[in-house]
Amino acid sequence: MFMAMEFQPYRLRLLDQRYLPTQTEWIECRDLEAVALAIESMVVRGAPAIASSAAYALVMHAHAAINQYENWLSYALTWDLALDRLLQTRPTAVNLQHALKQAKAMSAGWQAATPMSEIVECLQDFADRLHKHDLMTCKAIGDHGAALFDRPISVMTHCNTGALATAGYGTALGVIRSLFNQGKLKKVLVDETRPYLQGSRLTAFELKEENIPFSIHVDGAAAFAMKQGLTDMVVVGADRVVANGDTANKIGTYSLAVAAKFHNVPFYVAAPESTFDLEMSSGDQIPIEKRPPQEVTHSGRRQVTPDAVEVWNPSFDVTPAELISGIITEHGVIRPPYTKQIKEVFSKSR
Amino acid sequence: MFMAMEFQPYRLRLLDQRYLPTQTEWIECRDLEAVALAIESMVVRGAPAIASSAAYALVMHAHAAINQYENWLSYALTWDLALDRLLQTRPTAVNLQHALKQAKAMSAGWQAATPMSEIVECLQDFADRLHKHDLMTCKAIGDHGAALFDRPISVMTHCNTGALATAGYGTALGVIRSLFNQGKLKKVLVDETRPYLQGSRLTAFELKEENIPFSIHVDGAAAFAMKQGLTDMVVVGADRVVANGDTANKIGTYSLAVAAKFHNVPFYVAAPESTFDLEMSSGDQIPIEKRPPQEVTHSGRRQVTPDAVEVWNPSFDVTPAELISGIITEHGVIRPPYTKQIKEVFSKSR
Repeated sequence: MFMAMEFQPYRLRLLDQRYLPTQTEWIECRDLEAVALAIESMVVRGAPAIASSAAYALVMHAHAAINQYENWLSYALTWDLALDRLLQTRPTAVNLQHALKQAKAMSAGWQAATPMSEIVECLQDFADRLHKHDLMTCKAIGDHGAALFDRPISVMTHCNTGALATAGYGTALGVIRSLFNQGKLKKVLVDETRPYLQGSRLTAFELKEENIPFSIHVDGAAAFAMKQGLTDMVVVGADRVVANGDTANKIGTYSLAVAAKFHNVPFYVAAPESTFDLEMSSGDQIPIEKRPPQEVTHSGRRQVTPDAVEVWNPSFDVTPAELISGIITEHGVIRPPYTKQIKEVFSKSR
Repeated sequence: MFMAMEFQPYRLRLLDQRYLPTQTEWIECRDLEAVALAIESMVVRGAPAIASSAAYALVMHAHAAINQYENWLSYALTWDLALDRLLQTRPTAVNLQHALKQAKAMSAGWQAATPMSEIVECLQDFADRLHKHDLMTCKAIGDHGAALFDRPISVMTHCNTGALATAGYGTALGVIRSLFNQGKLKKVLVDETRPYLQGSRLTAFELKEENIPFSIHVDGAAAFAMKQGLTDMVVVGADRVVANGDTANKIGTYSLAVAAKFHNVPFYVAAPESTFDLEMSSGDQIPIEKRPPQEVTHSGRRQVTPDAVEVWNPSFDVTPAELISGIITEHGVIRPPYTKQIKEVFSKSR
């Protein structure tokens, strides 16, 4: 299976997503700062993939500290700074925050005298588990999603939610993979997903690798495709799902959800438990990252606007729960009323 | 006032819109074929501007024929081929077809012995009138549109409908200009308008030239902007409005109309009488041009998708009349029920 991330003690290799699909270049991160910069500059992206990369960054950080610090007592302060650095890379996806919180909780179990070698081992184990868990989770999401349909369908998707955005297999793209594997996929309609073109660059790259049939269209054409009956379902990923089901995802998702509602096309979100943030009661509370204007004013190195124009470039939008037909998780498909159902599903799983 | 087209006997100068906004280059067309190619390759675009360019192409065609043909009798066959050539350049905008039909009707008045010099004069007069009429029409549209509001508003628009798309002033952008001139414009929210980026390249260029405040966003962000209450009105142009009010316009327009409906944002079409095609009863009959996949697979010279992918690239979409709050014409604002009102307005004007 196609993978975009590989850890060997002590370097994290990342497929550089900025140059896909025309160049397949890997970069090698040898310390935490390199991983943080890779997240910020979108060498690696996608909520679960960011969390996984951050976990490996912590392993490298502790390992590099072996010669400098003796034990947890002396390392603890630096460790806190390391967590902070990673936390600040990107604000919208919650998976990263969950992973860092888990790591922090784990560290609460360390004693003053716990040697660095044990800390490294512990973090390595944590990162590996997170990565493996993500992979299994994606497969479960894919299969739950595919079970929603018993006939071949066409599916529209937005952004990239595949192996490039997760440990592998993908969330929304996991559903598409499972549909394909079960002979229930006619075609994928891929939103190009401006400004960063994750659809035409990354999703198209993954689909082509696996010989899954697809076509690409500009985001503005999605509603018109629905009007013509070209799609039976929309499935997207998520960067954060809050307690009432409101979902933050790549800019353009909300527009799709509105159009899907208007055309009675089922609109599904595919997201693992780690993407849920039950501490927030409504989508209004989700911080929305604003990305640099250059993503809109330039295409590659080509300037496409006049000089010095104002740009409104939110990287994400929030789709209210009432526009979502169901949320496909590793525990099954959650249906409205979301506040009640989400609480129920996760109280069982925890 | 800013102009993008200039005719002097016998050459048509066109501001080459393919290289805006970073390069301001003019090309000079000296014969009909050069104009036809300029229309096909989108050196010039926008329904009224295409019609105007075609009218000047006919002038040049007749003038070039002076030495070859003596009179209408000998020229007539070549003239028919000239009309056909222009007709085939782009299929969706109806203004071109109207202009060619008018020219054809005019030619019915020519005698076998009508000398070429008289034909040239006649065509020159026709082209000048068309151009001037377009300009006055746009101003009237602008003023009717601006009269809809009595307080400063923010306006969202799509594609380019300004001086670059018309003889000058613009249709939807004419409404925006009039609002601005009357102190009733807070800001313009410009859809970048993929794939050809007429919004970020051309509309932004025109707005900047005139110091009208604006910001640019990706098409997928439009619905999210509406959700946040950032726009009080959407106004777009049209390539063809049919008898029941259904409107063909740049791809992405339909998506905006659906989102505007969902958010109760008034959605207006600004279009001159020449954009109406009363011979078609419904939008389903409008031919939709499919543009080359390269507009989606490449950005400038940069390839942004894998090789040899399937692309769905309709250049236009059709917005059904029920999503349109009103159609702003030079004769005033037409309201539903459109079939009845459109017939009434134009029976008076003809």
